[in-house]
Amino acid sequence: MSARAPFDDASCTLIEALKPEIVSFHFGLPDQALLDRVKATGAKVISSATTVEEAVWLEQNGCDAIIAMGYEAGGHRGMFLSKDLYTQIGTLALVPQVVDAVSVPVIAAGGIGDARGIVAAFALGASAVQLGTVYLFCPEAKVTTPHYQALRSAKGSQTALTNIFTGRPARGIVNRIMRERGPISDDAPAFPLAGGALMPLRAKSEPQGSGDFMNLWAGQAVGLKHELSAGVLTRLLATQALEKLTGH
Amino acid sequence: MSARAPFDDASCTLIEALKPEIVSFHFGLPDQALLDRVKATGAKVISSATTVEEAVWLEQNGCDAIIAMGYEAGGHRGMFLSKDLYTQIGTLALVPQVVDAVSVPVIAAGGIGDARGIVAAFALGASAVQLGTVYLFCPEAKVTTPHYQALRSAKGSQTALTNIFTGRPARGIVNRIMRERGPISDDAPAFPLAGGALMPLRAKSEPQGSGDFMNLWAGQAVGLKHELSAGVLTRLLATQALEKLTGH
Repeated sequence: MSARAPFDDASCTLIEALKPEIVSFHFGLPDQALLDRVKATGAKVISSATTVEEAVWLEQNGCDAIIAMGYEAGGHRGMFLSKDLYTQIGTLALVPQVVDAVSVPVIAAGGIGDARGIVAAFALGASAVQLGTVYLFCPEAKVTTPHYQALRSAKGSQTALTNIFTGRPARGIVNRIMRERGPISDDAPAFPLAGGALMPLRAKSEPQGSGDFMNLWAGQAVGLKHELSAGVLTRLLATQALEKLTGH
Repeated sequence: MSARAPFDDASCTLIEALKPEIVSFHFGLPDQALLDRVKATGAKVISSATTVEEAVWLEQNGCDAIIAMGYEAGGHRGMFLSKDLYTQIGTLALVPQVVDAVSVPVIAAGGIGDARGIVAAFALGASAVQLGTVYLFCPEAKVTTPHYQALRSAKGSQTALTNIFTGRPARGIVNRIMRERGPISDDAPAFPLAGGALMPLRAKSEPQGSGDFMNLWAGQAVGLKHELSAGVLTRLLATQALEKLTGH
């Protein structure tokens, strides 16, 4: 099916060997035979939905939980049934409508940067949350120096969806190539070839400390900054969210 | 200043006569002399911000409260410092970043369609909420028949920002003219002239019950439907939100 994304025998064999508890897909789901093999390992399968329609499709096709991925999210959007960028939905509107449409647990993603966002996501009906950008500030994150510098200075209104780095829409901090050739361009080679086309520019500029021609993935919560390690951050977020949720 | 929107002596004289408790602007604020006259009546002044930068500007220019208007919101976006549609922020990401940047109360708007959204907005730090689309379902709403029919059937993923109805970006349910000429078109006449350009098509089609060439404003919470009157809805939302917030 066109809604299913590439996932091959080699990846599947690795999953059968390692038996992870959870296998999370993006851009839909793999072919049924491969998905059956993944599920036969006992793994819980999850994937991202950017619309109610995608969420319903994922539930019908065997997902045990669904990531409701709002417009705010950084990096690649998990779109697979629609290619329409104009109709992408914000997390606050997406989560309750997905919760109403499916019976599996919903994981909220996109725009959540601190305990306030976590508590808000639970109020919307989410059973869990997924935070991405906030972990890019952690010393453990393998971000390049130009990416880290852009993250530190970026405001929430300085990210945009762009297809020029990979050929598929993804959210990053607006930089020179996004301003001058995009952020959305019909000239971008199809996924995943666009990265190769930009490589000569990136190879020259990145060693000089420039983020002009590289992807600077970030979500719209990028304005909520910190300097904590991943473990400390995770425990702090959990503690703060629990305090807000339980009132003590 | 270019950030200030049209508002004339006649409107101001009306406010001086009627002395409303609150005066709410859109697209920034009127000229300082007019704003001073409004504030001299004792009215609290509020306006919409679509970015942190706009929120800070509104506070510095005398707003008593700020509407943090997320990407999800229906109708015209209150943009006035930026014209960049690519960087518009979802409500879940916008509200906490605005709350952190200003000291006046923040009113959350955009994508809120029921008590879940209200409680989420308070968790994000909002002091109040503004719901629009959900009131278009009320029998008191003066929506046209084609608009009402579109609202009843639309899903959250079927709205888009468009400039073709007025010349300024506003969110509505995707219809024929948005699909065929937009939703964002460089050919749209400047605000507010675009409506006139479309009038001949609308005048022919709307009496036949067609919503093909008219604005069908709606926000992304349009999937959360009901059939209540405005008073009943308001009391229900308040009761449900209070129950969730207080735990009983």
